[in-house]
Amino acid sequence: MKKKKLLDQNLIKTYLKKLYPICRSITGDGFRESLKILGQKIDLTIFKFKSGTRVLDWKIPKEWNIQDGYIIGPSGKKIADFKKHSLHVVNYSEPIKKKIKLIDLKKRLFFLKEFPNAIPYVTSYYKKFWGFCLTYKQYLQLKKGNYKVHIKSSLKDGYLEYSDTILKGKSKKQILFSAYLCHPQMANHELSGPLAMMVLYDYLKTTGPHYYSYRFLICPENIGSAAFLHKNKKDIKKKIIAGYVLNLLASGKNFTYKKSRLDNSLADKAVINILKNSKKKYLINDFIPEGADERQFCSPGFNLPIGVISRNDYNNFKEYHTSLDSIDKFDFSIFYESVNFILDIVETLEINKIPKSTVIYGTHHLARRKTKLYDNIFFKRKKTNAEKILFEILNLSDGTLDFLDMANKKNFLLLDYKKLIDNIKKEKLIRYL
Amino acid sequence: MKKKKLLDQNLIKTYLKKLYPICRSITGDGFRESLKILGQKIDLTIFKFKSGTRVLDWKIPKEWNIQDGYIIGPSGKKIADFKKHSLHVVNYSEPIKKKIKLIDLKKRLFFLKEFPNAIPYVTSYYKKFWGFCLTYKQYLQLKKGNYKVHIKSSLKDGYLEYSDTILKGKSKKQILFSAYLCHPQMANHELSGPLAMMVLYDYLKTTGPHYYSYRFLICPENIGSAAFLHKNKKDIKKKIIAGYVLNLLASGKNFTYKKSRLDNSLADKAVINILKNSKKKYLINDFIPEGADERQFCSPGFNLPIGVISRNDYNNFKEYHTSLDSIDKFDFSIFYESVNFILDIVETLEINKIPKSTVIYGTHHLARRKTKLYDNIFFKRKKTNAEKILFEILNLSDGTLDFLDMANKKNFLLLDYKKLIDNIKKEKLIRYL
Amino acid sequence: MKKKKLLDQNLIKTYLKKLYPICRSITGDGFRESLKILGQKIDLTIFKFKSGTRVLDWKIPKEWNIQDGYIIGPSGKKIADFKKHSLHVVNYSEPIKKKIKLIDLKKRLFFLKEFPNAIPYVTSYYKKFWGFCLTYKQYLQLKKGNYKVHIKSSLKDGYLEYSDTILKGKSKKQILFSAYLCHPQMANHELSGPLAMMVLYDYLKTTGPHYYSYRFLICPENIGSAAFLHKNKKDIKKKIIAGYVLNLLASGKNFTYKKSRLDNSLADKAVINILKNSKKKYLINDFIPEGADERQFCSPGFNLPIGVISRNDYNNFKEYHTSLDSIDKFDFSIFYESVNFILDIVETLEINKIPKSTVIYGTHHLARRKTKLYDNIFFKRKKTNAEKILFEILNLSDGTLDFLDMANKKNFLLLDYKKLIDNIKKEKLIRYL
Repeated sequence: MKKKKLLDQNLIKTYLKKLYPICRSITGDGFRESLKILGQKIDLTIFKFKSGTRVLDWKIPKEWNIQDGYIIGPSGKKIADFKKHSLHVVNYSEPIKKKIKLIDLKKRLFFLKEFPNAIPYVTSYYKKFWGFCLTYKQYLQLKKGNYKVHIKSSLKDGYLEYSDTILKGKSKKQILFSAYLCHPQMANHELSGPLAMMVLYDYLKTTGPHYYSYRFLICPENIGSAAFLHKNKKDIKKKIIAGYVLNLLASGKNFTYKKSRLDNSLADKAVINILKNSKKKYLINDFIPEGADERQFCSPGFNLPIGVISRNDYNNFKEYHTSLDSIDKFDFSIFYESVNFILDIVETLEINKIPKSTVIYGTHHLARRKTKLYDNIFFKRKKTNAEKILFEILNLSDGTLDFLDMANKKNFLLLDYKKLIDNIKKEKLIRYL
Repeated sequence: MKKKKLLDQNLIKTYLKKLYPICRSITGDGFRESLKILGQKIDLTIFKFKSGTRVLDWKIPKEWNIQDGYIIGPSGKKIADFKKHSLHVVNYSEPIKKKIKLIDLKKRLFFLKEFPNAIPYVTSYYKKFWGFCLTYKQYLQLKKGNYKVHIKSSLKDGYLEYSDTILKGKSKKQILFSAYLCHPQMANHELSGPLAMMVLYDYLKTTGPHYYSYRFLICPENIGSAAFLHKNKKDIKKKIIAGYVLNLLASGKNFTYKKSRLDNSLADKAVINILKNSKKKYLINDFIPEGADERQFCSPGFNLPIGVISRNDYNNFKEYHTSLDSIDKFDFSIFYESVNFILDIVETLEINKIPKSTVIYGTHHLARRKTKLYDNIFFKRKKTNAEKILFEILNLSDGTLDFLDMANKKNFLLLDYKKLIDNIKKEKLIRYL
Repeated sequence: MKKKKLLDQNLIKTYLKKLYPICRSITGDGFRESLKILGQKIDLTIFKFKSGTRVLDWKIPKEWNIQDGYIIGPSGKKIADFKKHSLHVVNYSEPIKKKIKLIDLKKRLFFLKEFPNAIPYVTSYYKKFWGFCLTYKQYLQLKKGNYKVHIKSSLKDGYLEYSDTILKGKSKKQILFSAYLCHPQMANHELSGPLAMMVLYDYLKTTGPHYYSYRFLICPENIGSAAFLHKNKKDIKKKIIAGYVLNLLASGKNFTYKKSRLDNSLADKAVINILKNSKKKYLINDFIPEGADERQFCSPGFNLPIGVISRNDYNNFKEYHTSLDSIDKFDFSIFYESVNFILDIVETLEINKIPKSTVIYGTHHLARRKTKLYDNIFFKRKKTNAEKILFEILNLSDGTLDFLDMANKKNFLLLDYKKLIDNIKKEKLIRYL
């Protein structure tokens, strides 16, 4: 897989600017519109679930749409104006229009003392509620008196939607990329995920077909992946051999990987091989059942080989779930580094096989093979790395290990030995199980 | 299990004073009388084995009783007078009355140079012998001349006895507490064991019935547990799910636990959970086949899930097996701390189950449960510990792990989450296998 | 196995001096003559393979013999004279006699810049080639002009030979010692291997029969062990319970052991037991598929329990594969220390058994056994090491572990407890599975 040109930065910037201001949620027009924009580069395959439908242990909620929302203060000035920032209204707020005393209003207000300039991101999908979010600075300026609150929203029977598209490869086995798209007006978390997927999709489509099939899920977080798993419950375990939830890819210095619940799944082995052999700092975390869609994918019944790729985890992203996660926090050089890292993972997975040596009794007589794998005039006192790895692969190819097992055991980067493996295979020193 | 009042310190002190001076052995009236005294608080169920009976690889020896014993020196003074301290006569000494030269007497004398004020504890259960124990200081004062030795003892066909009482619980599965009672006139080792058992028995009886049945074995060391195992050989492995040998509980700063031969048995997991999550220093030792009744319990054929609870191990108890282990070495605050620690173990075992999640495909929709387990308005940026543990338990409840496995894997004190587990169970998020 | 006198140093020195100057190779008269010399002390059982015979993945090459070889320089002086050192001609060089320009000659010359006084050892068994080896100093003195090269050698159909002799023991199970004998005119690597085998053979023959059968393979490196394995493919895995490739035994301070591919085979456990309980520095390396005959023995199909014993490994032997590995580098005190170490391994393997305790329910009543294994008058406050090990062995003898497993788990030198084990067995406390 020779690396071709990726979708360029200006294009991605245009998409980011289009997507950023939209007030998305787990249902409704904001999500729908965002999906349509991504659809300009990703072939969408949309699935719909009616409100009230049971998906796994969950139920699709009513569809939420919002037109406007604000508080009018004693002085008549608009406060927490949805039109200025869509985070100002608690996501999934029911409609409201009434006068209210400050003391009662305060029970409906959310702010963060530790980030006095941040509007927090608050949701109430499954409990009827309305409320406003504002900066702590705004909160401190609220004067005694009578307030009016007005939220023009609707909660009606409708649909939850997601897109699940497959790029077919030679094998029916799939590698899944999953990104969620329900967060309103935040940039790194979460738009870096769907935008990375856009670049990956374009690249894999134009360079394919590859060995594996590649599957791209864009869904509202949690309830969306629950719906996806519900629909695909029968065969998902058989089909998916590795997968990654993508997010937080455009800010933060270090690659961070959260392992699948299986702990040493194919998905995990590929990432570990790359990170452990890189010269950069990185973080590999064990699976914990907190987080995003990996909670559904890695529930004990599914227990899929799916991990999470990000830069730093959300505990270390201080703008997390606030208005501070604005468009200028989206660092394009970091974003593209992330995309290239993911493409290295893809290439690693494509190389990986379970080889079995064609000679298991004794060593191979390499001198009688055409490809010069080894120096026939024996002079050198030390072996080269390529010779060492050649010997290790031939010795370990007993049919119990895949190349990633060998590489992680013997501490080499699998990608570095792609050519060697091609030669070994060409000379029929190994065959693939 | 709400903690009720325990038998109080004054009462235990009275029992300690009654028991301390008695010259116990593995058979005989001293043991019998001591058992009777414990019987004032513990319902006894006594089993008897005739001298000569084969129990496992062992044979019940003749019953030993002693009335008096002393040496009369050249000056006519009594030395090593049994009436002053029962350790002065080697336990199980055959009767003797004769004149003896100092040089010959010396072959029959035991003392400890490194503790010149201590009378050592010496026994000869299985080889006919007589002898005396004295302090090194006494030994140094022995003058040349003719001595008389007199031991008024008897070795006759009789019985070995032990008490094995069960407090029935809802389940037939048993938790065993085992204490030995054959050591004459020593306080911490060994009377702290039977006295702790007295407090535990009273507490569990008055607060029961509990889920598990509790079994209380009071026996002479080694030969007693061999007799017990001989009698219960058929079903003991099936019945006992965890057990603890109790001793050395009233002196020494740190809790010390010696693991069962199984190394990670239920007994071990419960203690490890408590000690590793305490803020105190502690010692966890691997099983070795030295020690007390655990040598019988953990012989390879039985291989029972039984460990040893003590404060420091006997290697670190300098008064071990000497007259220095006197009544004033029995520290009641340490004793009660030990008892409460054992009750924490009991409570931990009672909580422990193998849970299976009722939802294994995807996560639980917690918002639709009555009990508020999780905040439905999603605002907080960090999860509480209770939320983290809730998620871990639900994710790990795949039927392969018990709560202790989870707690030890994820580093939490199971007792801290009793209420949470009750709620999870009440909401039918899990069921018990 | 009481240690008798070993073949003495003067005798070994005589053999070393006879063997050293011979120009050996993987076939031919040099090998044949060397084998004959070893045959004065080792009963040989010679196997022959015709040139062209397929052995495993390999093919027996033509037989190579050489009479002479040299370069004549512009001044008429002989350079790189085979008669002065047999390393001067590339091993397996085809015959050549021609004039040649310096520029063309240089393509056929081998030297080591980093060791300017060393003639390197170069071979070309499987590719037709001729060439010369010389010191870097000699190389620098070559003047412009016309050269003549002359190699009087032959490559003809003939035989590869090896010797495979068995000293029968009580059991048909074999312990293999393997040494290669194809290196011309080098002392520590490789003559220390066959000479150690000579001492071992003599010792085991004169002290035997032992429990195990001992098998002695002397072969040309790589192709020789391939031929041996080819011939014995059917039953070699069943017969060999442990084995060692011997070389580099007469120089280097630290024992070095390269484990078998099985990683914890019987061969490995015995060496580990001795090295870990010695007070000397040592090196234990994991198996890698570089090296000598272990590459054939530990190929995945055979995967034999065979490791490599040496002093330092060849990476740390700076004279490796050069003329610097001369006869004066052969240190006899190191050589005999190596031999004694190997005899300790032999004795360890002879002791090792899988014991099963005759009493698994409860402990053994030791007092009723005749042999005094334990003090029947219980006085000592601390157990002796022998008592601790006695208890460990009895407790661990459940039929799943051999003595080496116990010794390596509990950190004792098995050889130290040979007498104890004899007593335990004599008293029928254990039986052997």
